[in-house]
Amino acid sequence: MRGIVAFYLTYMLCLILGIICVALVVHWNYSYRGGFAWDSSAKHFNWHPVFMVTGMVVLYGNAAIVYRIPLTWGHNKLPWKLLHAGLLLFSFILSVIGLCAVFDYHNANHISNLYSLHSWVGICTTALFTAQWVMGFTAFLLPCTPMSARAFMKPTHVWMGGIILVLSIVSCISGINEKLFFALKGNTNGTLPYSALPPEAITANSLGVIIVAFGLVVLKILSSQIWQRPEPGYEVGVYQPLGYDGS
Amino acid sequence: MRGIVAFYLTYMLCLILGIICVALVVHWNYSYRGGFAWDSSAKHFNWHPVFMVTGMVVLYGNAAIVYRIPLTWGHNKLPWKLLHAGLLLFSFILSVIGLCAVFDYHNANHISNLYSLHSWVGICTTALFTAQWVMGFTAFLLPCTPMSARAFMKPTHVWMGGIILVLSIVSCISGINEKLFFALKGNTNGTLPYSALPPEAITANSLGVIIVAFGLVVLKILSSQIWQRPEPGYEVGVYQPLGYDGS
Repeated sequence: MRGIVAFYLTYMLCLILGIICVALVVHWNYSYRGGFAWDSSAKHFNWHPVFMVTGMVVLYGNAAIVYRIPLTWGHNKLPWKLLHAGLLLFSFILSVIGLCAVFDYHNANHISNLYSLHSWVGICTTALFTAQWVMGFTAFLLPCTPMSARAFMKPTHVWMGGIILVLSIVSCISGINEKLFFALKGNTNGTLPYSALPPEAITANSLGVIIVAFGLVVLKILSSQIWQRPEPGYEVGVYQPLGYDGS
Repeated sequence: MRGIVAFYLTYMLCLILGIICVALVVHWNYSYRGGFAWDSSAKHFNWHPVFMVTGMVVLYGNAAIVYRIPLTWGHNKLPWKLLHAGLLLFSFILSVIGLCAVFDYHNANHISNLYSLHSWVGICTTALFTAQWVMGFTAFLLPCTPMSARAFMKPTHVWMGGIILVLSIVSCISGINEKLFFALKGNTNGTLPYSALPPEAITANSLGVIIVAFGLVVLKILSSQIWQRPEPGYEVGVYQPLGYDGS
């Protein structure tokens, strides 16, 4: 019982930090970077951090911990599998839109793509996420996949899930840091440089810190043995194929 | 037996990646950034990446997995505890020298300290590492600490150990990315900007990728249940106080 109370307190913290992440990344780009548009201007780029943080961090993190919610235990696992896969698909779509935003902006403005370390890590993260989703769907939702393959795949799937979140956080922090150095150069009009920590720098740095905190809370939930979904017998619930009624 | 062969192959990979990390960070700063000095010039700053990557990533990662090496199993745990604590103390000292390098360079050149997101995450990582080492020493090496406190502390100590490595990697990637944007601006003398991916950019980006790969291998070793040190009975070996002879 104490474990369940502790879980829900941690889960609440996760939800609150996730909401703050989304609010802060929107606030930063809306209030300080000029807002949003899909017109190849700087406003076009602003969708990039919003979609990546919302998709690859907040939605991804929440989707990863669906099975840890005690409310979902003791029921047929299939609806929760579909929710897990569906939220991750939505997270993937948001990430792809976020990538389109930066590629479109770069291409329209003759800026090179994929040269920074941020972009190298980021594109590898998205590629791993794609592979993870396809392998997860194939292994755990296709009815034809044998149980032995599911059992073999599960530890790798869980481990990769955590690693992709870590890489997303690495990408976000390096990206926010890079953007602030680009944007806050200071000039003769009295605009303060990044080094003077103007309000925009405090806002975006705080976003970075909250992203890290959110990630750590999700990793804590994922790694705690006592918060694992209890599986009956030979984990029938885990490996049941799509269409299996759970009985 | 298969588990042990797989461990040593993974451990070899970890050692090789660690050596490449140190070689690449030295090569980058020696061959492209002008080398090293402790004279408040740009060469003074160059110690920062070298000491942080060597201390907070490579040495830290190797120290974290000492107990996973099967060669150390079945013996008195105390020498390995002292090796674990000693390597981490050395790693901490290197990190402090690395921090001194950047603070000294900034102060001598009237550059602000601790304004970038990289520096915020980095300084929090070092603070957590300090707290972790002090708590680890107090809990697991001081003879007066009761067994119950050791048992209570161990999961947190192990989890925090992994998280500090994750934060170190976040700090390194954002720092390398930042440094390359500072250093590779391109100019009329024909120097190529970061966006043209000159050899220095390829070298330092590759360093970043190898750091991430090293971190993932260490996290894999830490998280694998089959590679945990087997503890007899009520894990006497884990919680034995300093001076306990293991019998």
